[in-house]
Amino acid sequence: MNSFQRRLVIATQRDRHAALRKRLINAAERTIAANGLAGLRARDLAGEAACAVGTIYNVFEHLDELILCVGLRTLAMLDTALGAVRLARPYGSMEDAAEDLVRLALAYLEFAAKHTVRWRALFEHRMSEARPLPQWFVDQQHALFAQVERPLVTLLPELEGDARRTLARTLFSAVHGIVALGLEEKLVSLPLPDLRSQLAATVRAITTGRDQLRSIDSADRQLDVPRC
Amino acid sequence: MNSFQRRLVIATQRDRHAALRKRLINAAERTIAANGLAGLRARDLAGEAACAVGTIYNVFEHLDELILCVGLRTLAMLDTALGAVRLARPYGSMEDAAEDLVRLALAYLEFAAKHTVRWRALFEHRMSEARPLPQWFVDQQHALFAQVERPLVTLLPELEGDARRTLARTLFSAVHGIVALGLEEKLVSLPLPDLRSQLAATVRAITTGRDQLRSIDSADRQLDVPRC
Repeated sequence: MNSFQRRLVIATQRDRHAALRKRLINAAERTIAANGLAGLRARDLAGEAACAVGTIYNVFEHLDELILCVGLRTLAMLDTALGAVRLARPYGSMEDAAEDLVRLALAYLEFAAKHTVRWRALFEHRMSEARPLPQWFVDQQHALFAQVERPLVTLLPELEGDARRTLARTLFSAVHGIVALGLEEKLVSLPLPDLRSQLAATVRAITTGRDQLRSIDSADRQLDVPRC
Repeated sequence: MNSFQRRLVIATQRDRHAALRKRLINAAERTIAANGLAGLRARDLAGEAACAVGTIYNVFEHLDELILCVGLRTLAMLDTALGAVRLARPYGSMEDAAEDLVRLALAYLEFAAKHTVRWRALFEHRMSEARPLPQWFVDQQHALFAQVERPLVTLLPELEGDARRTLARTLFSAVHGIVALGLEEKLVSLPLPDLRSQLAATVRAITTGRDQLRSIDSADRQLDVPRC
């Protein structure tokens, strides 16, 4: 085999590898979107992607990596959905920025209500054996929080980088909690229109009381309530 | 057998039945507190409670009922923990009521941080086959939301029963979201002192901006953002 032939063989292997990865991600995505993580079996995925079960581990380090690849697609879909409702023009006022936060929150609710199963899988999945999250996944999470950061630049201009990033994550988490328990049939269940108005009102209350978010790292860091 | 003997037999059966239920709930509680729902196997529980696997279904309708019995204990522990940090005296001011909400939120965080595994199990569990939740479990949830309702009576006195109950659930959900994603290693992770100050500041922002929570059922019920 000359060097040209050798390069051709390597290129073909790489293509096959990439094609198999894609087929497996597609298969896992269909399963997760339909039945969540509980329905995921390596054997079924191998069957759908027309490969041997063991071959999965030639193209993915572990099943967690495959699940994260699907999670990455869900995060990207969410990022697109949130980007689509953002005010396109620059904020002319505080109200614009506050209203942008409300629109983001409502868009998050719509996304979760429409893609409930795959959205829930994103939060249910935990890495086995305390593996760290890969950087490409962390980066996609940050893109999401960055959407929340933009209105905060206007609402709380004196908050610098890290403090603003942390606050964006906190506000995302508060909205997530209202959406997650609101859509959950078990603990709290609300009709969608009620959930929308509750969510919008809570976000408006937070932006109205935003002065409380300026000096965020004071006495509350210590525990001053009796331990339970 | 005379009627006295018959009553004695029935009473003994009832005692045994109750004792076995208790042993099984204790066994399930130990497992859930240590390893969460994933570690729960009917066979192991039967072994711990010294009964046959099939006997579990003589004293519980289904495994869901057993899991809910453990969940009831978790909810009751949480109720006690929240009750312990409430201001004992009546609120002398709006600030008192607002600060009570902050204390409740911080106590919720401490509870979740201390009892993470069993607290998480409470939210992860879903009823099989879309069974409805039993009323005794729903009642214990309501007791929890009632803790949040008390300060709301002072903060938003014009809100009547149903609207106040719904708002209490929403605020609980927002706090839950901040706590759940904050303690989650995967999506968002914050050191506990930072998490405390973020949580307290967010609750203060909500109480400061509480005027937004008065007229909660207006235009937001309709969807005015583009569907994703």
